Amino acid sequence: MMPVTKDLIEAARGLIPADTVFKNARVFNPFTCVWEKGDLAVKDGRVLGIGDYAGSVERDFSGLYIVPGLIDAHVHIESSLLAPKEYARLVALHGTTTVIADPHEIANVAGTRGLEFMLGEREGALVDIRYMLPSCVPATPLDVGGATLDARDLARFAGRDGVLGLGEMMNFPGVLAGDAEVAGKLALFPVRDGHAPFLTGRDLNAYILAGPDSDHECTNRAEAEEKLKKGMYIFIREGSTEHNIAELIPLVNPATVSRCCFATDDCHADLLLHDGHIDRCIRKAIACGLAPELAIRMATLSAAERFGLTDRGALTPGRRADFCIIDDPHRFVVQQVFRAAREIPAGPPTKPASLHTRVRCVPPTIRDLQIQGHGMARVIGLVPHQILTESLQYEIRENAVPDRDRDILKVVVCNRYGNNKWGIGLVHGFGFRQGAIACSISHDAHNIVAAGASDAGICSTIEAVIGAGGAMAAVAGPSVVVLPLDCAGLMSTLPYDEVARRLGQLREVTKTMGGIDDPFMYLSFLALTVIPALRITDRGVFDAAEFRDVPLFVDSKENV
Amino acid sequence: MMPVTKDLIEAARGLIPADTVFKNARVFNPFTCVWEKGDLAVKDGRVLGIGDYAGSVERDFSGLYIVPGLIDAHVHIESSLLAPKEYARLVALHGTTTVIADPHEIANVAGTRGLEFMLGEREGALVDIRYMLPSCVPATPLDVGGATLDARDLARFAGRDGVLGLGEMMNFPGVLAGDAEVAGKLALFPVRDGHAPFLTGRDLNAYILAGPDSDHECTNRAEAEEKLKKGMYIFIREGSTEHNIAELIPLVNPATVSRCCFATDDCHADLLLHDGHIDRCIRKAIACGLAPELAIRMATLSAAERFGLTDRGALTPGRRADFCIIDDPHRFVVQQVFRAAREIPAGPPTKPASLHTRVRCVPPTIRDLQIQGHGMARVIGLVPHQILTESLQYEIRENAVPDRDRDILKVVVCNRYGNNKWGIGLVHGFGFRQGAIACSISHDAHNIVAAGASDAGICSTIEAVIGAGGAMAAVAGPSVVVLPLDCAGLMSTLPYDEVARRLGQLREVTKTMGGIDDPFMYLSFLALTVIPALRITDRGVFDAAEFRDVPLFVDSKENV
Repeated sequence: MMPVTKDLIEAARGLIPADTVFKNARVFNPFTCVWEKGDLAVKDGRVLGIGDYAGSVERDFSGLYIVPGLIDAHVHIESSLLAPKEYARLVALHGTTTVIADPHEIANVAGTRGLEFMLGEREGALVDIRYMLPSCVPATPLDVGGATLDARDLARFAGRDGVLGLGEMMNFPGVLAGDAEVAGKLALFPVRDGHAPFLTGRDLNAYILAGPDSDHECTNRAEAEEKLKKGMYIFIREGSTEHNIAELIPLVNPATVSRCCFATDDCHADLLLHDGHIDRCIRKAIACGLAPELAIRMATLSAAERFGLTDRGALTPGRRADFCIIDDPHRFVVQQVFRAAREIPAGPPTKPASLHTRVRCVPPTIRDLQIQGHGMARVIGLVPHQILTESLQYEIRENAVPDRDRDILKVVVCNRYGNNKWGIGLVHGFGFRQGAIACSISHDAHNIVAAGASDAGICSTIEAVIGAGGAMAAVAGPSVVVLPLDCAGLMSTLPYDEVARRLGQLREVTKTMGGIDDPFMYLSFLALTVIPALRITDRGVFDAAEFRDVPLFVDSKENV
Repeated sequence: MMPVTKDLIEAARGLIPADTVFKNARVFNPFTCVWEKGDLAVKDGRVLGIGDYAGSVERDFSGLYIVPGLIDAHVHIESSLLAPKEYARLVALHGTTTVIADPHEIANVAGTRGLEFMLGEREGALVDIRYMLPSCVPATPLDVGGATLDARDLARFAGRDGVLGLGEMMNFPGVLAGDAEVAGKLALFPVRDGHAPFLTGRDLNAYILAGPDSDHECTNRAEAEEKLKKGMYIFIREGSTEHNIAELIPLVNPATVSRCCFATDDCHADLLLHDGHIDRCIRKAIACGLAPELAIRMATLSAAERFGLTDRGALTPGRRADFCIIDDPHRFVVQQVFRAAREIPAGPPTKPASLHTRVRCVPPTIRDLQIQGHGMARVIGLVPHQILTESLQYEIRENAVPDRDRDILKVVVCNRYGNNKWGIGLVHGFGFRQGAIACSISHDAHNIVAAGASDAGICSTIEAVIGAGGAMAAVAGPSVVVLPLDCAGLMSTLPYDEVARRLGQLREVTKTMGGIDDPFMYLSFLALTVIPALRITDRGVFDAAEFRDVPLFVDSKENV
């Protein structure tokens, strides 16, 4: 509860002037889903009310529409590649005033130190960042990164300012098995986000019974409708790679809107910069036929209610004066943004704080990358627009990879946490004719992963990533292009426009390599052992179906 | 959060049988406001889900409709005249499984001892009784009853099982003045019910800003719409005397239904017995044109959400298996009720517990009731169907009251808390030709109040009330008819059907007295000093407009 002063009460009564009155605006009311014409009075960053008010400052907002500050119900800030304060500076310009973030990536790298860093970044950020604590670090017992967070670790964060609950419970097998550690985590918080793609019927019932009551992983309408009916809040996701609005928005109507929110989950800086954030979701939903009023309700009060944030989501007396200004509800282009009644200026960036994590990694040499042996080999097959892979097999001759004709390239994972291991595998589907890419974003352990049509390129991009303390790197000519991810090897401390520019440069390089679009996206998921079928880790090839390490060559008894 | 066992998870998955499966029913889904056909499985009093389940017991519910247990968002149990467990036994038969009660009346009589009694009555009651703590005891500084509850007293109950928040904040002048004691009470709880009849505009803004975010006092549509828009939950009330559904129900639509609930506030046992409880509200709302699905949503999930009760309000996995059975949503007649999956039997009553409070009162004699003096006198004028009164003046001769021709009768208030005071006034409007009535329900101090056309009748009914340890009593012939209110002088420990029978007897007696209908209702509010214009207290006549005690005779310097 926010404190109530006598001054605020007197100002609400009109006995003393408001700080500012925004006159003649149309204010969105999410309780009735109608626009209310009137003068919005604010004081001390709070709403006094709509009514007949005089203010120390009075601004004429004739013809303008005031919308409560937009809320992202589920996001991994790390995916933007921006450090939290810079991320906030970017999304604030798009009308967002609150994000509910799950710092899952940095927790895999730096554990509680990562959580403390993210909590510390709330101070002074241009949007209010609230956290759901990562429930699955590491993602699996085999997917070992920089840290393990058990229920006792998480319990220490319960009740901390900025902590709202437990983040997406991805370990649904653990939930369904009644695993004690999983149950212990669920018992810590009353607000628990779910993650249950394709779970249905009785298993979905059991998952919900165990505690999680939201889901942002719905990709088809029947799935979302079942979850909605079973009492889950549905976060309709529109990220850089996942686009669910078109499929799911027909589920939203006046009777269901209070249980539906928007989430961006994973969005790169360039998408945020050029296309927007939750404002983009609203525009997309309207384009798909949803009434603007319902889309705005989703992005405001529905998200606030889901997380018990009774101090926002509407511009009613006592709530935070977080809002944005548009001139046309159907176009929904944000013109100005106010947080706690103060306009957010489009000022220059300040260098954001960084969590330095040493990349403790011995780079492999070209010699190290030589594949000894020959015969039938396991090859990871990329699947277009999917993070899952196929398990392929090809006859391989000694020292015959890269094999550009058959598109069989090397993929390497180097442990970044100091155990000096690396694993080499083969991958089909990148289509590179030359060059290599490497990055320190590699779900969920975030080791360094590289792939390429050139051993020298693989080595030089890995070295560039290590040298930058984490990075995305690509090489196709004489020089390596690098986007440094100096904050935990996941995020950049560069300004967002510079990050977007470097992403553009990387895209230029990968285009000249002659392969698929967005190769970094595929690369960053190749080490994720929970997704079928074949993966690569710092131990070598991993069969996700059998859930065990396997040798590169089918007939071999050992791993390479 | 309710505990989750491995057994429950396994049963939800279908790996072990459910306790009971209710097959082929139509189950109301408040998240979508549609009826879902299927088999509802339950175990350990919890819902497993709707789906393909086998149960140790399977019951065919073909043709029947299952509705989540009904919730009363605001009620004073004391007004039923039934002790809490007997009240629960009665409303449970009507499909109610949860009531949100404000034990305001008993708190005025017995303070924290009264609250402890009410909390103790939760154990073993047939419905789940949750309490909002009375915020205004006494109602005004002048309206002194048996106790005062300040913020420190209430703070001791915060966090107690069964305590949800702060009850209706009636002291809106205190809220608007920024009174520290009022602010202290509001700061204790995040959930705070309001009470702000006719408050509008900027003052309403200030009231909401200060904390209360619900209201059950709306009597006209514009008032309710303003409060709804300003973020208040609207509890639409249908009590024994207040009937607001017809006026307010047009406000309810799919976009607003999540913010609207039903409340009964004050309902006598006979109305509950004969006409029903929240089921009656649903029928009335349907009769007024609301879709049954929206009415049921109000009575279930909307109320549960308002009070943060995430374990009920819907029949989704993990929630309490509280539900009732109907055979026609439009008729909405409750056939069976299940609480925690067990059918509530229509069994015989058990003697409910009682809070004994000694009525410490010396009854006035006939001689004491003589009015000394003559001249122009103040007379309380009843207003039909209102609890407010008019301030009248009549020329009175010595010893000439009761004056049946001019309908000027005596009204007496005897302090019941041992200060031996009584006050005598005059009242116009009862119309009694003979007899008298008295009762120990007298808002909010609950002294003994009596009025009648016979001094002997006044004395004998007061004596009967004292003798019973609190009662409603009426006399018009040789014998006094009594409904004992032996529980704190407010509630009866008789079975509900006997209470209803005695209420009928009392009504028979008052009919023969030849006056207005429902005289006890008017009588019980005559001492309420916060309502205009003229009232009577144990100190004598009270002018509510001037907010001071006044003499009976206009020209007198002193009170009688």
